[in-house]
Amino acid sequence: MSTSPSPAVRSPINLAGKLALIHEHWAPRVVAEMNDYQFKLVKFHGDFVWHTHEDTDETFIVIHGQLRIELRDGPVILNAGELFVVPKGVEHKPCADQEVQVMLIEPRGVLNTGDQGGERTATNDLWI
Amino acid sequence: MSTSPSPAVRSPINLAGKLALIHEHWAPRVVAEMNDYQFKLVKFHGDFVWHTHEDTDETFIVIHGQLRIELRDGPVILNAGELFVVPKGVEHKPCADQEVQVMLIEPRGVLNTGDQGGERTATNDLWI
Repeated sequence: MSTSPSPAVRSPINLAGKLALIHEHWAPRVVAEMNDYQFKLVKFHGDFVWHTHEDTDETFIVIHGQLRIELRDGPVILNAGELFVVPKGVEHKPCADQEVQVMLIEPRGVLNTGDQGGERTATNDLWI
Repeated sequence: MSTSPSPAVRSPINLAGKLALIHEHWAPRVVAEMNDYQFKLVKFHGDFVWHTHEDTDETFIVIHGQLRIELRDGPVILNAGELFVVPKGVEHKPCADQEVQVMLIEPRGVLNTGDQGGERTATNDLWI
């Protein structure tokens, strides 16, 4: 058997095209996997909840718009084309005064609300 | 002790700004880490060598320009804002007829030439 991916798998993922299919806020959608990590696209608008991922770093890349990640010692502001890694165990709260389009990269199974849970917890592992 | 990152670590990484500091082709530079994975920026121009990473998938995201990843059963063409994951064990050869700016995401320690080695092997783990 060949280890080459199937033709379907050999298509690149167009991030803007996938984002155009997302109509909810705070609902990450998986677009690709690398080993046991997932690439997730998500649209944020407004304030999320303070939370922590105790077991993993979490990467944010802004595709369009501006993202503010509140940390307990001050905010980090990300514009399009900027990347920030929230270290594991660090409390954070993503906020966006205007809608922002973001790619998250993190291990498979990470919940958007981390340790916090609650009503803002999105269904996990949904692909688009 | 606080687990918050230091102020220096709390700055976002501007991908275009970092790429402007890179003047060599085929010489990946690390800009961030997430757990044991690295984000590397690199400029390609021309053809690379066929190689394989036997132990890991490898992610390519095109920041500017066009990248062609040759696979044994045909090429994948990526434009800016597109992502492709080369599965582990799959032979590939990155090519760029014009200079292309790329972000690679892969575990720390992965060599650019994979199993192939040779004179195109870049020094690993250089940060910018």
